[in-house]
Amino acid sequence: MAQAVLKKRSKKAGLPPGALVHIGERKAEVMKASVMDYDEKNCSETTLTDLDLCISLRGKPSVTWVDIEGVHDIQALEKIGLCFGLHPLVMEDILNTDQRPKIEDYGDYLYIVLRMLTSGSETDEISSEQVSLILGENFVISVQEGAKGDVFDPVRNRIRNGKGQLRKLGADYLAYSLIDAVVDNYFIILEKIGERVEWLEETLVSNPAPEALHLIHNLKREMIYLRKSVWPLREVVSGMQRRDSTLIRESTGYYLRDVYDHTIQVIDTIETFRDMLSGMLDIYLSSISNRTNAVMKVLTVIATIFIPLTWIVGIYGMNFKNMPELEWHYGYLASWVAMIGVALGMVIYFKKKKWW
Amino acid sequence: MAQAVLKKRSKKAGLPPGALVHIGERKAEVMKASVMDYDEKNCSETTLTDLDLCISLRGKPSVTWVDIEGVHDIQALEKIGLCFGLHPLVMEDILNTDQRPKIEDYGDYLYIVLRMLTSGSETDEISSEQVSLILGENFVISVQEGAKGDVFDPVRNRIRNGKGQLRKLGADYLAYSLIDAVVDNYFIILEKIGERVEWLEETLVSNPAPEALHLIHNLKREMIYLRKSVWPLREVVSGMQRRDSTLIRESTGYYLRDVYDHTIQVIDTIETFRDMLSGMLDIYLSSISNRTNAVMKVLTVIATIFIPLTWIVGIYGMNFKNMPELEWHYGYLASWVAMIGVALGMVIYFKKKKWW
Amino acid sequence: MAQAVLKKRSKKAGLPPGALVHIGERKAEVMKASVMDYDEKNCSETTLTDLDLCISLRGKPSVTWVDIEGVHDIQALEKIGLCFGLHPLVMEDILNTDQRPKIEDYGDYLYIVLRMLTSGSETDEISSEQVSLILGENFVISVQEGAKGDVFDPVRNRIRNGKGQLRKLGADYLAYSLIDAVVDNYFIILEKIGERVEWLEETLVSNPAPEALHLIHNLKREMIYLRKSVWPLREVVSGMQRRDSTLIRESTGYYLRDVYDHTIQVIDTIETFRDMLSGMLDIYLSSISNRTNAVMKVLTVIATIFIPLTWIVGIYGMNFKNMPELEWHYGYLASWVAMIGVALGMVIYFKKKKWW
Amino acid sequence: MAQAVLKKRSKKAGLPPGALVHIGERKAEVMKASVMDYDEKNCSETTLTDLDLCISLRGKPSVTWVDIEGVHDIQALEKIGLCFGLHPLVMEDILNTDQRPKIEDYGDYLYIVLRMLTSGSETDEISSEQVSLILGENFVISVQEGAKGDVFDPVRNRIRNGKGQLRKLGADYLAYSLIDAVVDNYFIILEKIGERVEWLEETLVSNPAPEALHLIHNLKREMIYLRKSVWPLREVVSGMQRRDSTLIRESTGYYLRDVYDHTIQVIDTIETFRDMLSGMLDIYLSSISNRTNAVMKVLTVIATIFIPLTWIVGIYGMNFKNMPELEWHYGYLASWVAMIGVALGMVIYFKKKKWW
Amino acid sequence: MAQAVLKKRSKKAGLPPGALVHIGERKAEVMKASVMDYDEKNCSETTLTDLDLCISLRGKPSVTWVDIEGVHDIQALEKIGLCFGLHPLVMEDILNTDQRPKIEDYGDYLYIVLRMLTSGSETDEISSEQVSLILGENFVISVQEGAKGDVFDPVRNRIRNGKGQLRKLGADYLAYSLIDAVVDNYFIILEKIGERVEWLEETLVSNPAPEALHLIHNLKREMIYLRKSVWPLREVVSGMQRRDSTLIRESTGYYLRDVYDHTIQVIDTIETFRDMLSGMLDIYLSSISNRTNAVMKVLTVIATIFIPLTWIVGIYGMNFKNMPELEWHYGYLASWVAMIGVALGMVIYFKKKKWW
Repeated sequence: MAQAVLKKRSKKAGLPPGALVHIGERKAEVMKASVMDYDEKNCSETTLTDLDLCISLRGKPSVTWVDIEGVHDIQALEKIGLCFGLHPLVMEDILNTDQRPKIEDYGDYLYIVLRMLTSGSETDEISSEQVSLILGENFVISVQEGAKGDVFDPVRNRIRNGKGQLRKLGADYLAYSLIDAVVDNYFIILEKIGERVEWLEETLVSNPAPEALHLIHNLKREMIYLRKSVWPLREVVSGMQRRDSTLIRESTGYYLRDVYDHTIQVIDTIETFRDMLSGMLDIYLSSISNRTNAVMKVLTVIATIFIPLTWIVGIYGMNFKNMPELEWHYGYLASWVAMIGVALGMVIYFKKKKWW
Repeated sequence: MAQAVLKKRSKKAGLPPGALVHIGERKAEVMKASVMDYDEKNCSETTLTDLDLCISLRGKPSVTWVDIEGVHDIQALEKIGLCFGLHPLVMEDILNTDQRPKIEDYGDYLYIVLRMLTSGSETDEISSEQVSLILGENFVISVQEGAKGDVFDPVRNRIRNGKGQLRKLGADYLAYSLIDAVVDNYFIILEKIGERVEWLEETLVSNPAPEALHLIHNLKREMIYLRKSVWPLREVVSGMQRRDSTLIRESTGYYLRDVYDHTIQVIDTIETFRDMLSGMLDIYLSSISNRTNAVMKVLTVIATIFIPLTWIVGIYGMNFKNMPELEWHYGYLASWVAMIGVALGMVIYFKKKKWW
Repeated sequence: MAQAVLKKRSKKAGLPPGALVHIGERKAEVMKASVMDYDEKNCSETTLTDLDLCISLRGKPSVTWVDIEGVHDIQALEKIGLCFGLHPLVMEDILNTDQRPKIEDYGDYLYIVLRMLTSGSETDEISSEQVSLILGENFVISVQEGAKGDVFDPVRNRIRNGKGQLRKLGADYLAYSLIDAVVDNYFIILEKIGERVEWLEETLVSNPAPEALHLIHNLKREMIYLRKSVWPLREVVSGMQRRDSTLIRESTGYYLRDVYDHTIQVIDTIETFRDMLSGMLDIYLSSISNRTNAVMKVLTVIATIFIPLTWIVGIYGMNFKNMPELEWHYGYLASWVAMIGVALGMVIYFKKKKWW
Repeated sequence: MAQAVLKKRSKKAGLPPGALVHIGERKAEVMKASVMDYDEKNCSETTLTDLDLCISLRGKPSVTWVDIEGVHDIQALEKIGLCFGLHPLVMEDILNTDQRPKIEDYGDYLYIVLRMLTSGSETDEISSEQVSLILGENFVISVQEGAKGDVFDPVRNRIRNGKGQLRKLGADYLAYSLIDAVVDNYFIILEKIGERVEWLEETLVSNPAPEALHLIHNLKREMIYLRKSVWPLREVVSGMQRRDSTLIRESTGYYLRDVYDHTIQVIDTIETFRDMLSGMLDIYLSSISNRTNAVMKVLTVIATIFIPLTWIVGIYGMNFKNMPELEWHYGYLASWVAMIGVALGMVIYFKKKKWW
Repeated sequence: MAQAVLKKRSKKAGLPPGALVHIGERKAEVMKASVMDYDEKNCSETTLTDLDLCISLRGKPSVTWVDIEGVHDIQALEKIGLCFGLHPLVMEDILNTDQRPKIEDYGDYLYIVLRMLTSGSETDEISSEQVSLILGENFVISVQEGAKGDVFDPVRNRIRNGKGQLRKLGADYLAYSLIDAVVDNYFIILEKIGERVEWLEETLVSNPAPEALHLIHNLKREMIYLRKSVWPLREVVSGMQRRDSTLIRESTGYYLRDVYDHTIQVIDTIETFRDMLSGMLDIYLSSISNRTNAVMKVLTVIATIFIPLTWIVGIYGMNFKNMPELEWHYGYLASWVAMIGVALGMVIYFKKKKWW
């Protein structure tokens, strides 16, 4: 994820605005455009193979959802863009897959950028995919980068089985449903991260290993990244709510407020994790230093006790002619008594001072 | 409390909005709905066992307070929701018990979420319960998660004995009273925490044990959590004040301003505690390092004095044939004099330099 | 002052709003209400002993200043409150003596809370007293907690001797004068603190004792407390300026702007002190560590010089049969030369490396 | 780049406003003014050698772009300024080449300041050049400091080959194109920096050398500088969007929104780099201290093991007459056994305590 | 400069507002009031000795600039104040020479406070002087504290020689010119500081002496002080721009915007210096600790090598009867070989581990 800080935008520098160049890594082999067309009674699903037919999707009274996976086939995308009358800048933004979440009003349609996060089931690596939504009068176009799998299956199922309100309400409600699916998915990501944070916290108390520092650091960077992905979403959703565009019906407003709440909650949780990680860094650093201090102290105490003893034995290793103690019968014993006395005295002193 | 950062929302991901799934732990065994119905003259209390009768509560001119404990009985809640005409999103939010405080205007009624904090009498553990208030024309529905006990008994008693203004004023004043009870309770929680903070501060000065670090860390996390619970309340209350909803009479405005003040005071106190805890961390870390330094210094001084002495005794332990000092009669005495001189000189030097 | 973070509010929890309970410590034995009644020509001073007469104060065209000291006599306060038509919430706030500064508009009168700081002449302890001002059409009620002495004597004297504008202008100018007296007093407090900060700074450079840390910490906490007392005052004064209440004449606006400036200056000074204290903490910590490092380095150097010397003397203490050096006539002298050479070499090396 | 914090403005102090003094280093030898004049059909390129002819450029219906390189020839600039009716303050700002990005509306024209960054291909040094844009009814004047090369070649080529919309749209679109070229170039700079940040991060983990600290510090300073250059650009572009000047057509608004997005993205990236660098500093400091601690611990352990051993050998070096152990046949062996026992015991103890 | 945090305001506490007491140190011996009176054609300069004549200055159509140096002569100032109809609060603020920059609209005139900084040519000490400007219909009064010299000489010269626009435009342009002169002077101060910062930075890398810490600390405090002086100026200038006072003509607006830009640039530079100083503190602290660690490590390594060697020589200093090695002919040589072997082994090990 570290590499995702900045994608290679340099190949775009100098090109005119609206120039269509795919920026980002190629996630899908073939572009796939699946179409769902539904109203309250009927629902049809097709795959758009001949893009010239896309014109037939326009002007229908039913709601049309064109879901495109893969953004590297620039000609195909351009055809769709022309068919739905999209502005060249929208087309450009769809292809630049390192956009931050945003909303732009183009009069006839709203252009919304989201970031869909997925966390590999085997690894903890979080990967991020750009989702562009175009919400028109009675159509929604969603463009994904094309990584395998997405979070929209529940929405598809709800359209298919016709339960709930989705089929009854318009394109704006579909757009809301897609955004809601993306935000709901953030909670799953955050739960996984939460588990890692808690595991790390327990580990830290029991065994503050140097690896912990790198784990904390990695989690901190993921938090920076998540924050960058989610924070602007707040503005996007509140922008949809406030907007006096006729594209968003008033009844959808309540639902958008709900997504807004969820977004705030995600941001709150990210901030809490950040605070916790900062606290853990403090704990880690002071644990390490406590531990080192404890070791050093004990070792120093041992050294300090033996240094005077070594001096004592040194005294009686001197070769002076006239050293009366050496002649005494109990001289050796006396030196042992003296040494044990000094050692005991120091131990008691250290214990009293709580140095040991 | 650490685990409360994020409840398992993942089981909701993918469900349509308004889908009723209880998120959070089950705190009560049986859902209990008690009803108080009062006007200035009369006051009746019942328990709502047959939920079909709930319809009879509507349309009365008297004020009706339905207090529900326990949120896991989804069907029962749904019935009440239908009876009072609540929006599916409100029902959903009632069941998701990790909401942050918020206020939402649904035209006919206001939906308010609060967090009620309780602190176990034996332990210092603070637990948090979500309270949803629905304020309609002449009714208030309060939904608690169902943990044993709440902070509303004083309000109940004031309704029962009819003293004060509560019986004379409308549903908005009842809602205010409930919010006020929740906020007043924060002060009790903060007093308890305040005692712990002060105890910790005194402990720290007298005996900076490593456990203190964990206590500081725990208190810091509780502060993060409290802040998250209380901070948005500020907006909630000022939102009620500002709102041009006809549900809130002007006379209640003064009382809401009072609650607002209390909320600010709670936030202020939390911030002060945070500042104090940060300062304590500094004190702790530098106490620890002072203490270690003091120990190391004394020990190093001792070692430093004895090392030259050991060298002196080593000299006269050498076995050179021709060492005139060894032959002298007072050689041994002279070596003692030299050693005591060196030791004293160093002690005086260290004392002068204030190293000891 | 540490204990002042939170007063015992818990005894209020559960009582209805407007319930009059005195929160805070009892500072005065007897409540005292002194009345000054003045217009441009006359000025009378009385003490309100029979509170029933307080009704006579209302409705006069002259300006009436009722100054109450002591807030524990709840009945007496209630009488005054009724007489001047004060809202129960105002009465409640007067009794809760841990309010933050605020301003509330009750239509007929403004309710203003200030914090008056006093610094004992013998000790450095700063104590804080709540002052409530009620500004009506032609009266001002000031309620102090009743600690001995206040900062209003200059205002009283100006009323008595009739110089300046005070007697000519209305109740709003009197309220301004009282606020101004409180704010002016902050400067005196800040000067005292400023002297302590400067003294501490000088001490720190000459002798970084461990007590300095506690002094810095204490001053930091006083800053937190002062900030809490002064910061909201800014809003209070600007609130009075902006307010389109008829209670405040336009000509008083200039004076309020002046108080506002002073408040900003007080806040600025507090922030500067905070910055200075943070800087001092850095200086202290690095002084301590510099000092410890210096000690350790010198001691380590001494130890390091003597350890090789001790090894040399150890060599010639060995009892091998065949050690030619021992037999040499100048062997002993040579060993001295070697040792002095080694010692000098190391000293020169250390000096060169600037380790010593 | 460090020196760029403040250019020598002192030579201007005291001069009247609008006094034309070149502040900054001289980057070009000769001032060069190249003119492109185009409409949808035609496009002519000339170099403005006789500045008196510049008057002929005014009043044409076609779009005129005057690109000036070098700002030290004050008379020539003054002539151009007079010809296009520029305000003396604009002329002054063009010459002061340490402006922060800004936009100023002078009624007839907008004055925009940008900072163009270039990164030497051989070194990592980033250099910064001030670009002034004057956007009038149908002309754009761009003034560069005159460093060799700029980022406008793609724009020139688009004008020449007439592809895209540039030739069809007005002077405001040309101004947008120039701003866009500058902002696009930031991404290239950021990519280079990103590579250095990543390289540094890898280096830090494998080998935390002291030089790393200086590299981190240098990158941090570059971030401060970049931030200063880019942050105000946000306001500039949003200022152009919001402005109700007739100079900017509505259709250009979409494009400006696009540049705004890019600017936000640049700022975001800078902030992310700053966060990463802060984290790296933490990592570096704790790596260094970990490493030192590890060394010290091992060395201390070795010393601690040998100190008691040295004491033991010292005992039997004493010269007491009566030392029974010395007479024993296996005394020497026993002393070895004792020493090995003590050493092993300590090693086991240290291993168990994980000190080694 | 440290002492300038708070001037002795306490002597004012308790006095009525508008009471004229000079607060601050006395900078000039005698108050001096010089008058410049000019219109497009004529310009006269006088010194106002008889203050009663000051009334003659009013009501003239020409622009009058009264420049007063020294604020301790309260009676003289009062006379001038009365003559120009200044509000008592303005007079009070002129005398309190520790005002922060501000602007106040008194209807007939604007009252502006600035802080003029001067840096002694010999020392680096920055001193600060309060400048009050009163801008009326066709007069400007500037009041300086009276320190020797000011930054207004260029303005005086421009009035005298009549070049530029100053003589043609009104009093508002004169006021702008004075503010501009003060702000321009900040750049000179900042350049001096910048040189010290750069010098310090170079010193720090080559030789991190403990004095550097105090220099950093002093510069940091100067930054705090500068910030306090300049930051509010931003509001002052933008306040003048926005103000719908008729005192400021529209044409002056452009010039004020220019001063505003300069102020922002000054603030930016101060913030950059602050960031650089913070970075330098980090560098310094870690340099110091690196250096200490390096010393300790080398010394510890030396000690660690010799401790085992000392043990070896101790072994053969033992007096056991039965020590076969002592009898061997090459025993002594063998012991040397062993010692050199151990020492070499350890050196190689340390080198390999890069501990040395």
